[in-house]
Amino acid sequence: MISIVIVSICILLAAMAVDENKQTSGLDAADPLPSWNEGSTKDAIMGFVTNTTNKSHPDYVRPEERIATFDNDGTLWCEYPDYVQSLFMFDRVKDMTAEHPEWNDTEPFRSIITGERASSANFTINESLQIYIATSVNLTADEYMSLAGEWLNATQHPRFGQPYTKCVYKPMLELLNYLQSRSYKVYIVTGGDEDFVRSFSDRVYGIPAEQVIGSAFYLQFVEDNRSVSVVKLPKILVMDDGQEKAKEIQQNIGKRPIFAYGNSNGDIPMLQLATSDSRPGFCLLNHHDDPVREYAYDRQSPIGRLDSGLDMAGEWGWQIVSMKDDWKEMF
Amino acid sequence: MISIVIVSICILLAAMAVDENKQTSGLDAADPLPSWNEGSTKDAIMGFVTNTTNKSHPDYVRPEERIATFDNDGTLWCEYPDYVQSLFMFDRVKDMTAEHPEWNDTEPFRSIITGERASSANFTINESLQIYIATSVNLTADEYMSLAGEWLNATQHPRFGQPYTKCVYKPMLELLNYLQSRSYKVYIVTGGDEDFVRSFSDRVYGIPAEQVIGSAFYLQFVEDNRSVSVVKLPKILVMDDGQEKAKEIQQNIGKRPIFAYGNSNGDIPMLQLATSDSRPGFCLLNHHDDPVREYAYDRQSPIGRLDSGLDMAGEWGWQIVSMKDDWKEMF
Repeated sequence: MISIVIVSICILLAAMAVDENKQTSGLDAADPLPSWNEGSTKDAIMGFVTNTTNKSHPDYVRPEERIATFDNDGTLWCEYPDYVQSLFMFDRVKDMTAEHPEWNDTEPFRSIITGERASSANFTINESLQIYIATSVNLTADEYMSLAGEWLNATQHPRFGQPYTKCVYKPMLELLNYLQSRSYKVYIVTGGDEDFVRSFSDRVYGIPAEQVIGSAFYLQFVEDNRSVSVVKLPKILVMDDGQEKAKEIQQNIGKRPIFAYGNSNGDIPMLQLATSDSRPGFCLLNHHDDPVREYAYDRQSPIGRLDSGLDMAGEWGWQIVSMKDDWKEMF
Repeated sequence: MISIVIVSICILLAAMAVDENKQTSGLDAADPLPSWNEGSTKDAIMGFVTNTTNKSHPDYVRPEERIATFDNDGTLWCEYPDYVQSLFMFDRVKDMTAEHPEWNDTEPFRSIITGERASSANFTINESLQIYIATSVNLTADEYMSLAGEWLNATQHPRFGQPYTKCVYKPMLELLNYLQSRSYKVYIVTGGDEDFVRSFSDRVYGIPAEQVIGSAFYLQFVEDNRSVSVVKLPKILVMDDGQEKAKEIQQNIGKRPIFAYGNSNGDIPMLQLATSDSRPGFCLLNHHDDPVREYAYDRQSPIGRLDSGLDMAGEWGWQIVSMKDDWKEMF
């Protein structure tokens, strides 16, 4: 039995070695990124991955250092006309009104219930935090993920007419898969709630819960006889956007990414972290410039604002991905 | 080429399927835990791992849910006569005195410098936190890990006469390896500093930095022209002991462990988390009862105090591991 295993492993390793040579010499038959148009962006991605996984190249990076970090909203899935999590929270407020009759007379809840304000752009930051807390408090992560999962199954994008979990970008799914196949460990680093994204990350992106870093609450450990649980307190521990993304990456992973991908100003510190030391580093920003197949927004958008990203990309060597020109398919 | 790979994979999978049957029927020739004496503890460990990895057993757990969490001090390596990190901090204080002449007249630093107090048991909790902060502040994780790594290379255990990284328990290394070979994802959840343990976890335990959860500081994102870094602020974010361990597991992993291993009261909430829902869960506590090969301490020890653990183990179904009787070898 053992000899069968050893012989099989030898044949397999030999076959894979041949394959590796093919890849690094550019003769790989199967295109790992078929939804990306040929051009400088696709060449740059494949060049970086090929070099960092080729032991004889000066940019070679050992597998344990191949950390890739991806933003979620607007990078992996559609964030327009509103953040998906905001819509979930608005529906939660409506569902919870029976338990909270006082919300009928209290802002910011009243105008969610009446429908006067139905988009996150209509709320101040403080109001948004108040809604985030009110719809999360006292839940365990499992309970929150269950509510989020049910809502995602029952809700559709207003324009695309399918669940939000189908409004993920096909070129990005191919890229996640390509990186993982080359021994990159891929993390989602999201401004959204950690448990909201964990409720679908494995199923939709192939990224397990423990590789999702996001906004989160202080927690309380609760003992009840022979059972314990951990529940969310009404106090935010981290809003994982901007510099918090870089700090959370350091705290949770303990390593700098060498590959980072975002789409808004809030992703800039994460991209800086990946491209500011002497090691190879590669960063991209999705530019939402396709009003026909998706949406067009960037400099002054209330969602996914990208003015600083567009201004800094040249100096920092970040790739601006034109979703219109670089992507053959969208969803 | 592709057909060779496919045929090889098929042969390999078939061979592995045969092997899996052998393992689950107890006919596996190679003992994965040779440093553990035969007996009920070893049987319980191997029974749990065998059942949770056997698809036809009612206790089967899918690989993505096979999370194992291990304490470090006293569980994976020796914590007596003092925590290794405390000794590192005391030496850091002495090294930093040139930059901090005021410490010669200021407690708790003065008595570290003079040698009047040389053990963590001689300091109050507040003093210990003050020392932890003073020896960490303004460093990046890389700088801290580098200092810790140098110190670990240069320092020996006073009784065993070898580096602390050699004072790791051989039966525990075998157990980490056994679990990982059965698709368990193994985390260290330590009261020690996250970066202190990350400085050696991969090399010594085969556990990468991103699977180390520990005590940590608030961080600051620092921009300096085309370079950014993340440095430790003089404020502790989390002291990862007791209930904090359970909360940090939830925050960082997002899943409950099904296997947890500790050695002191501070590990109890982590063990409760692994054994309080309807899923299979298995927990162990090292009992330091071998004064000849290591040390004997438990109920009232200032380090590794285990009174509650010993009292709760029966009701919660946790295994008390006698290091004297259950382990054939120590280091």
